[in-house]
Amino acid sequence: MGWNQTIVASQLNITYPIIQAGMAGGATTPELVAAVSNAGGLGTLGAGYMSPEQIRLAIQKVKALTTRPFAVNLFIPEAFGSPHAEEVNAMNSILRMYRDRLGLMGEPDLTRVTESFDEQLKILLEEAVPVFSFTFGIPSDEWIAKLKEKKIITIGTATNVREGLELEKKGIDMIVGQGYEAGGHRGTFITDPKHSLIGTMSLIPQLADHVSIPVIAAGGIMDGRGIAASLMLGAKGVQLGTAFLTCHESGAHQDYQRMILEGTEEQTTLTTAFSGKLARGIKNLFMNEMESHQQEILPYPIQNTITRDIRLAAAQQNQPEYLSMWAGQGIRLSKKLPANELIEQWVRQTSEIM
Amino acid sequence: MGWNQTIVASQLNITYPIIQAGMAGGATTPELVAAVSNAGGLGTLGAGYMSPEQIRLAIQKVKALTTRPFAVNLFIPEAFGSPHAEEVNAMNSILRMYRDRLGLMGEPDLTRVTESFDEQLKILLEEAVPVFSFTFGIPSDEWIAKLKEKKIITIGTATNVREGLELEKKGIDMIVGQGYEAGGHRGTFITDPKHSLIGTMSLIPQLADHVSIPVIAAGGIMDGRGIAASLMLGAKGVQLGTAFLTCHESGAHQDYQRMILEGTEEQTTLTTAFSGKLARGIKNLFMNEMESHQQEILPYPIQNTITRDIRLAAAQQNQPEYLSMWAGQGIRLSKKLPANELIEQWVRQTSEIM
Repeated sequence: MGWNQTIVASQLNITYPIIQAGMAGGATTPELVAAVSNAGGLGTLGAGYMSPEQIRLAIQKVKALTTRPFAVNLFIPEAFGSPHAEEVNAMNSILRMYRDRLGLMGEPDLTRVTESFDEQLKILLEEAVPVFSFTFGIPSDEWIAKLKEKKIITIGTATNVREGLELEKKGIDMIVGQGYEAGGHRGTFITDPKHSLIGTMSLIPQLADHVSIPVIAAGGIMDGRGIAASLMLGAKGVQLGTAFLTCHESGAHQDYQRMILEGTEEQTTLTTAFSGKLARGIKNLFMNEMESHQQEILPYPIQNTITRDIRLAAAQQNQPEYLSMWAGQGIRLSKKLPANELIEQWVRQTSEIM
Repeated sequence: MGWNQTIVASQLNITYPIIQAGMAGGATTPELVAAVSNAGGLGTLGAGYMSPEQIRLAIQKVKALTTRPFAVNLFIPEAFGSPHAEEVNAMNSILRMYRDRLGLMGEPDLTRVTESFDEQLKILLEEAVPVFSFTFGIPSDEWIAKLKEKKIITIGTATNVREGLELEKKGIDMIVGQGYEAGGHRGTFITDPKHSLIGTMSLIPQLADHVSIPVIAAGGIMDGRGIAASLMLGAKGVQLGTAFLTCHESGAHQDYQRMILEGTEEQTTLTTAFSGKLARGIKNLFMNEMESHQQEILPYPIQNTITRDIRLAAAQQNQPEYLSMWAGQGIRLSKKLPANELIEQWVRQTSEIM
């Protein structure tokens, strides 16, 4: 039996148990999602920040580009209080310097800081997407029942064994074990993310020992070596994010892609500066300077909304020092290639060494 | 060719490329070192805190127990200034509470805070130990020349690619790539250890791509799955520390062993509280309480010497809340077995899955 014939591949009806992570923020274009699925993996639309209508259009575009299974990834909403006006004012005072540098007048409207998860998920059900993956928590029992009714496969995110057990208990089909090395937001939901930073090498076997549903390894995997290593650790599939950010179909900003391609393993760090939630990205001026304002950073998702104008302007003006450049610790291994060639290379390498 | 026939195994003249880490502090008894070597791995005497005479006696004891190769591990000394009296007084005021709880009068003498590295290494040369491994830096060119003359194989520690390149340039024979998951002190020597916390899954392939000498993976490896995964990542050998702490021959305190056997992946953290140098261990009262005294912690090795009486008394009084219980993130996978049975199990598991 080939290394690719895992329960993850068979349940998802894909050729290789290789999942492209559902990175929110524009990198996961319909072209990328479809290219990954067409190459035998599972492409994922990172729809966390998208409006219901944007999600519907993107899903339809993916469907036009591939007949293979694909996933859509959403954020499980968390309860958050309205911030006090003085706290918002304090953060706006800190951010004024960046807004001035980028020529931004005014301040963001904080009356609506997230998309409605229920409205987003409704679209996924209406469009009957093959796979729904999520992070930051677990959907309600009602939603899980509706997803099961539609035969939509569910993939949750765990950063420790306790979260894995919780996902299994709720009837989720598969678990992404997100190691410390992973780029982007920490998916932790039952403890402070700072206290659940378990390296992939440690997390995967401990998770695999304690749950009976399939574990998908994520965090630091960049090529066939990481895929083979993950399977050895007990994972039945792998999820790669950073490795897809520099492929031809990626929607990531060119400066962001360049920073990944030129970066080293020492250049990423964990920060709450952009969104209020702990995430790994390439160090830049904004992250460094915000280090001295830890106390003033607003909770997620408010900090995310209040910094959005800065990130958008930075992208438009090609100023990577103010972009959130989420990336994992494996960036030295990144390559600029079409998604299908990346997957072909990884598959060949995995087959050679296993 | 079997998975165990790597360049690390052949150069070290051992059956399996499995190295027991040279943990300082008493865990690596001569019985443990010899048991590992007799089982086909490479046992290592963790001699960093031992006096030259203690090292000689321990080496002779190991030689009496095995004819197989073994290693001795030392700390490369770092320049450090004498702390100001007021800084020492401030730390002693903080530590007074712990000394009172443990019934300790007086304060440690700080006139001599480390053993002499030169005197320690001289013993290794006189005893012609087969392998010398080290951390926290690189020995001088003079010492490296003397080691080569005696045909002693040298193994350095790197936590990032730059350190690996530096070790290779200096003529070191092999590199332990120490991932973020690893227990004990971070071996980082060319940057702030806080900025070189690379997970094993990321570190090993990036290191293997950039050096031509063999890389030995360390950090989070606890069984055959971790061994197989490390070899897939490009390592030619593995080093396990925590996994040996609970074996029958370990000299680790019984409470410390129990904490490892009962612990979970969420229970370790990085701290400078015990030694002044960043290290991973099981969270306890001392580490938690010292979190609020970050500013007062003295530099390594002074902090190590000033807390020594507390750790010794805690061990004597079976009070694990004041012990430094170094351990990696894989502690859920720990087992209480003789060292040779642990190695046999790992070898069998590695052979089965590779």
